[in-house]
Amino acid sequence: MADPTCALAAPDAFDTATREAVYRTILTRRDTRGDFLPDPVAPERLSRVLLAAHHAPSVGFMQPWDFLLLRDPGTRRQVHDLFAKANAEAALMFEAERRETYRGLKLEGILEAPLNICVTCDRGRAGPVVIGRTHIPMMDLFSSVCAVQNLWLAARAEGLGVGWVSILDNAALAAALGLPKGVVPVAYLCLGHVRGFHRRPELEAAGWRRRLPIIDHVHHDRWGNAGADMHLAERLDTDQAAIETGRFLVERLD
Amino acid sequence: MADPTCALAAPDAFDTATREAVYRTILTRRDTRGDFLPDPVAPERLSRVLLAAHHAPSVGFMQPWDFLLLRDPGTRRQVHDLFAKANAEAALMFEAERRETYRGLKLEGILEAPLNICVTCDRGRAGPVVIGRTHIPMMDLFSSVCAVQNLWLAARAEGLGVGWVSILDNAALAAALGLPKGVVPVAYLCLGHVRGFHRRPELEAAGWRRRLPIIDHVHHDRWGNAGADMHLAERLDTDQAAIETGRFLVERLD
Repeated sequence: MADPTCALAAPDAFDTATREAVYRTILTRRDTRGDFLPDPVAPERLSRVLLAAHHAPSVGFMQPWDFLLLRDPGTRRQVHDLFAKANAEAALMFEAERRETYRGLKLEGILEAPLNICVTCDRGRAGPVVIGRTHIPMMDLFSSVCAVQNLWLAARAEGLGVGWVSILDNAALAAALGLPKGVVPVAYLCLGHVRGFHRRPELEAAGWRRRLPIIDHVHHDRWGNAGADMHLAERLDTDQAAIETGRFLVERLD
Repeated sequence: MADPTCALAAPDAFDTATREAVYRTILTRRDTRGDFLPDPVAPERLSRVLLAAHHAPSVGFMQPWDFLLLRDPGTRRQVHDLFAKANAEAALMFEAERRETYRGLKLEGILEAPLNICVTCDRGRAGPVVIGRTHIPMMDLFSSVCAVQNLWLAARAEGLGVGWVSILDNAALAAALGLPKGVVPVAYLCLGHVRGFHRRPELEAAGWRRRLPIIDHVHHDRWGNAGADMHLAERLDTDQAAIETGRFLVERLD
């Protein structure tokens, strides 16, 4: 009998219902800031979400991530202080007319969310030479980012909001969390149940920036060579319009 | 009548079938190297996969990515030459006993896959000051990585394999693809239909590295503080064991 752990799994596409589930999760995932509920996150949901992250791709199968689960209010208040300091500095970098808009944006839920998670990268985990990291040293950081995105999608499916707080001084954050030398913060996340998920990204709804037409960002064989594949261009346009009108999942999966 | 684009969507978890679909996709995604089929990728599948990428989170809603679709054999041969050069350099970095193993590994499918995709990051897309990038300059690169992970999961659901080739000199790659100043390669991907999907990551199956027990990489409130939540620890252990034995999707979603 063939070892089932060695044989290849079937190459077919998943059925329509399965693909619908995947696209629904991707399209309705949001960065949550002001909508967290204080309810605790059940350990069974949290376990699944962390294991989704742990099954991200990693360079050289390095699995460089760790997950710091932060519930202690004192620690989170310390991180919130770091955010407040960085955010005040950030506001001054914007031109006057955008500065007031910036100051009005809610950009984190560090204290309102019942749980914060810092995803790190242990840059020495697999020794100094890692398959696939020899020429692009940041590849291990990118692996931890893939873990974040898996976590984010699994959380959405579990009805949990996630917000990525990046307005922080990483060196101060590493000190606050007691990270050892060689372990760096990659993402500081707030996680919890929510009042609901916004239909559109909040920065889009606030008029800060628009969703770009994807067709302007697809090139063929060389940068700037657009329109070489009219059939694909037509699909991209129609699919993106269907996403905007909420018809994509029911009309565009065949 | 309330504007349906403004109201919040329901905060509930997705039903079990939907969550099963999401975890199945995450757990069966693989880095494909030697299993590509030459069959072309249908434009409807490619369009959906690219739009999944385009709906990744991005810092300040910057959407810094572009997608270069590389089909031309000449361009791909040029990239393959860059890989061969970097890979020869990489082999010499390993100790003697691992060097032969390394040389025996199939690490890319640049010429066999019908399509390569370079995902880039335009570091100037939203001007010099970007919400959320003020203190962590790499955040825009991380956004493009989130797009890669969305693309990878959507591709798996569509029955398409993806392999990330990172043994490349990025400056030489940028020149080969004609990237303008300020646009950098983030991921060079091979994509196509496959003979099948490996049950385990190939580096794990080859004995290069093992899947780590997640429990060793979960900390509470501070680095090194493990075991503060016995209920979660028990769930993590049991869930990871269920993933290993293929029982997770049928037994652990409730």
